[in-house]
Amino acid sequence: MKATAMAHTNIALIKYWGKRDETLFLPMNSSLSITLDKFYTTTTVEFCTHLYEDVFILNGSLTNEAETQKVTRFLNIVRKMSGKELFAIVKSNNKVPTAAGFASSASGYAALAAASTKAIGLDIDNRTLSKIARLGSGSACRSIYGGFVEWQKGEEEDGSDSFAKPIIAHDSWDISILSVLITANQKKVLSREGMKRVVETSPFYSSWPIEAEKDLIIAKKAIQERDFDELGRVTEANALKMHATTLGANPPFLYWQSATIDVIQKVQELRSIGLHAYFTIDAGPNVKIICLPQDEQAVKESLHSLPAIRDVYSSRIGPGVQLLA
Amino acid sequence: MKATAMAHTNIALIKYWGKRDETLFLPMNSSLSITLDKFYTTTTVEFCTHLYEDVFILNGSLTNEAETQKVTRFLNIVRKMSGKELFAIVKSNNKVPTAAGFASSASGYAALAAASTKAIGLDIDNRTLSKIARLGSGSACRSIYGGFVEWQKGEEEDGSDSFAKPIIAHDSWDISILSVLITANQKKVLSREGMKRVVETSPFYSSWPIEAEKDLIIAKKAIQERDFDELGRVTEANALKMHATTLGANPPFLYWQSATIDVIQKVQELRSIGLHAYFTIDAGPNVKIICLPQDEQAVKESLHSLPAIRDVYSSRIGPGVQLLA
Repeated sequence: MKATAMAHTNIALIKYWGKRDETLFLPMNSSLSITLDKFYTTTTVEFCTHLYEDVFILNGSLTNEAETQKVTRFLNIVRKMSGKELFAIVKSNNKVPTAAGFASSASGYAALAAASTKAIGLDIDNRTLSKIARLGSGSACRSIYGGFVEWQKGEEEDGSDSFAKPIIAHDSWDISILSVLITANQKKVLSREGMKRVVETSPFYSSWPIEAEKDLIIAKKAIQERDFDELGRVTEANALKMHATTLGANPPFLYWQSATIDVIQKVQELRSIGLHAYFTIDAGPNVKIICLPQDEQAVKESLHSLPAIRDVYSSRIGPGVQLLA
Repeated sequence: MKATAMAHTNIALIKYWGKRDETLFLPMNSSLSITLDKFYTTTTVEFCTHLYEDVFILNGSLTNEAETQKVTRFLNIVRKMSGKELFAIVKSNNKVPTAAGFASSASGYAALAAASTKAIGLDIDNRTLSKIARLGSGSACRSIYGGFVEWQKGEEEDGSDSFAKPIIAHDSWDISILSVLITANQKKVLSREGMKRVVETSPFYSSWPIEAEKDLIIAKKAIQERDFDELGRVTEANALKMHATTLGANPPFLYWQSATIDVIQKVQELRSIGLHAYFTIDAGPNVKIICLPQDEQAVKESLHSLPAIRDVYSSRIGPGVQLLA
């Protein structure tokens, strides 16, 4: 009744932006991501008799009630599937710099899904695992797979056809991903809250799912053809369109800080001198850059010359979820 | 055959963004502006016999051929209206800090329209003058009037119903306008070029005219009720929506610099401590702030604390075009 799993975080090149179902984490549009090799969560789940509630130990410390409740809500799904009514001790270690503004929910729920289903004795395939992980956090469904991954939005109301699928494996194309941590002056708008406000109030949102589906086709073709510049251009365009929708929300908001624009301009400048580097931005001020491995060092050095950059983390493409024990 | 006119520049609170006719400067949406009292153009036009081409002297110097041709094209309209085939000497002086990134085309064409029609002997009303000024530069039609001005887009193909109208006079509501000049790192995308690219390629543009018309109604009501905060909110929201459309263009672009975001955040911060200040941004990196006169000094001082601010110019609401001689 015990299992350990490890899952890596992912960054979306075609963004997941807007839910059509808030409870089942069903997205308005299909998305596409790269799984990273450097940031991951390792989670051990042990279902025990003589336990009267779930216990969640994150990075060595017991968590507060709200955090534990999220885990309990997720484990309820797994308990229901297995028909077993046992509580669990969950030990999770993030090797994700969350304090530095990086999200751990994708790798966290992917690892929790794999470890908890295994521990409770369910024998399921990765596709089902992807759907279960999705119920914890939308983007977690993509972290089940390594390499380039598509989350197909699906059409069904119950979410049965909303899951991730691998496009190409993590060792079939070598790409470098830089996560640029900038100094933030203002409190951020939460990702889920911002997404909801945009869907409900932004006049630009109606174009988003159409644009995202178009961009996805371009991105998948670029991946199949290993056309890095084409993939980079559509990655940037897609991120900018996502952020455009926030400017039309009521009240309007922007996830960017001034340093976000400094990084955007630096990347554009690097391209003008021949480097292959493109940016993407999630629901926050930090910027991720994809570049060819040969250009990584030059890109990193030029980023460090910007005053408001706190740190730059490099990754390569990582593998999917793994059972460790 | 000689006349001198003075016209002030204006800033749009509800933006003119997108043309439905490139030649006649017919806009996709109605817009609303404030005429400023501090920045203006004074132009003298003298139609002369024994002159074989137009001569254009700007700020004391003869201009290049391209600039002279623009003036000739404009004077051709006036010559056609009057039936007189005379060339002119045009002397124009801008009290607009154009080198600092401020546009002089609105005050420039408004003054040229007034001086040239008077000099050639046409007796026309301000509405007609507004339509003539529009043929030089769209936003120039608003500088014919002082105070708060609406440019109604019109419906006719020939532009006969596309002209400006005053909403309230310049001395009926005292508002302070700060023009914040920031340090630019990158060459800007030209306003006309950017506008065209957005109309042709941005999926968000289709929402713009609808949003602008809604915002215009809110703004006009706020002006009638002298509700400064309501006017400020809709001014900001409208500007952000305009800039959102550029992020969806192909290729995408952004007029902002990092300092643009610093100013936006500073204005939001000032509001959180009780000041009445709101921003707007035209097709460039500089920010304009409208605030209540009682708050002007505090707003100015806090802006000067930002590192990338080169200068802050204050204005109040100015009058319409005036014939000086």
